Amino acid sequence: MSTDIVWHEHHTDKAVRAAQKNQTPRVLWLTGLSGSGKSTIANLLEQKLVAQHKHTYLLDGDNIRHGLCGDLGFSDKDRVENIRRISEVAKLFVDSGTLVITAFISPFKADRNYCREILAPQEFIEIHVDTPLEVCEARDPKGLYKKARSGDIPHFTGIDSEYQAPEAPEITLSYQDESPVETAQRLYDLLVAKGYV
Amino acid sequence: MSTDIVWHEHHTDKAVRAAQKNQTPRVLWLTGLSGSGKSTIANLLEQKLVAQHKHTYLLDGDNIRHGLCGDLGFSDKDRVENIRRISEVAKLFVDSGTLVITAFISPFKADRNYCREILAPQEFIEIHVDTPLEVCEARDPKGLYKKARSGDIPHFTGIDSEYQAPEAPEITLSYQDESPVETAQRLYDLLVAKGYV
Repeated sequence: MSTDIVWHEHHTDKAVRAAQKNQTPRVLWLTGLSGSGKSTIANLLEQKLVAQHKHTYLLDGDNIRHGLCGDLGFSDKDRVENIRRISEVAKLFVDSGTLVITAFISPFKADRNYCREILAPQEFIEIHVDTPLEVCEARDPKGLYKKARSGDIPHFTGIDSEYQAPEAPEITLSYQDESPVETAQRLYDLLVAKGYV
Repeated sequence: MSTDIVWHEHHTDKAVRAAQKNQTPRVLWLTGLSGSGKSTIANLLEQKLVAQHKHTYLLDGDNIRHGLCGDLGFSDKDRVENIRRISEVAKLFVDSGTLVITAFISPFKADRNYCREILAPQEFIEIHVDTPLEVCEARDPKGLYKKARSGDIPHFTGIDSEYQAPEAPEITLSYQDESPVETAQRLYDLLVAKGYV
């Protein structure tokens, strides 16, 4: 055996990985309507955290829907399973010491609470991107509201499917007429003020 | 807006995260029979890599079977889905810049190749923990071989379910009569020699 090798006596665990990354791992869970700005804010927030030498990962539709959840559709049952898997993956990333940001509509309280419950206290930070429906629908960046109103997309959150707003989110990001960078800055400042990052 | 904030122009991507962690992210995929030593070796290897300031995460039955794959059983269909989800999660961790170690029997070539194919070239390192069946069965740390021989566990890999050995693994860890630390050291030395870590 080489003599320059250190074999630790303890298994590598969350505390070891978090210390290595010099941060407290958490899930920053953005929830809000389609068009509320979740993904844009999440991307800007991640850039900001990385610039602060944080170790982050962003889970969103782009990297989840075609891979891990590629077998799921948009039925109620599949939507529940979608959020369950995302929650379990977020938990694995927290265990790896990572600051996880998630950007999904996640309209149902029970699903969001599932993630809260499988994590330790203070690890789940629920962030309500509280952009009013009228603003989201006026933006309609992907033309989805138009399709939902014409009946081409059934069960669309905010139109004919319920959005259950968080009752006691750690952070509510109230709507203001400002740029995405300004909104992301507000969120970052709130996260710092509350000691979450 | 605060003026002390750097907002990058580019999205945070795999290259940024890998550079931040000062490593090339990969999946170190251990495959082998039950009792071959995969989990023990994987744990020791992770400790060694962390001591070398690598950012790692270990996926194994302990953190996968009760969470992400808690809805799956042991039918052929569920075993395929189990490895598919593990592969997709491993890909997410690679995207986050992490060196992922996996420790699953993963008896079927097609399933292992699925993970290889969804990753970039050189990101999937297949490691055959090539401990002979006789040795695994003599160890029988969980008494599973005994139960499989008596018929209490059907479809047990190596007994009445096939183990498809890798044809061209990046690394074959041949069996030697030595301690787990010595085996893990051999694996680490091979990974370094081949430039994988």
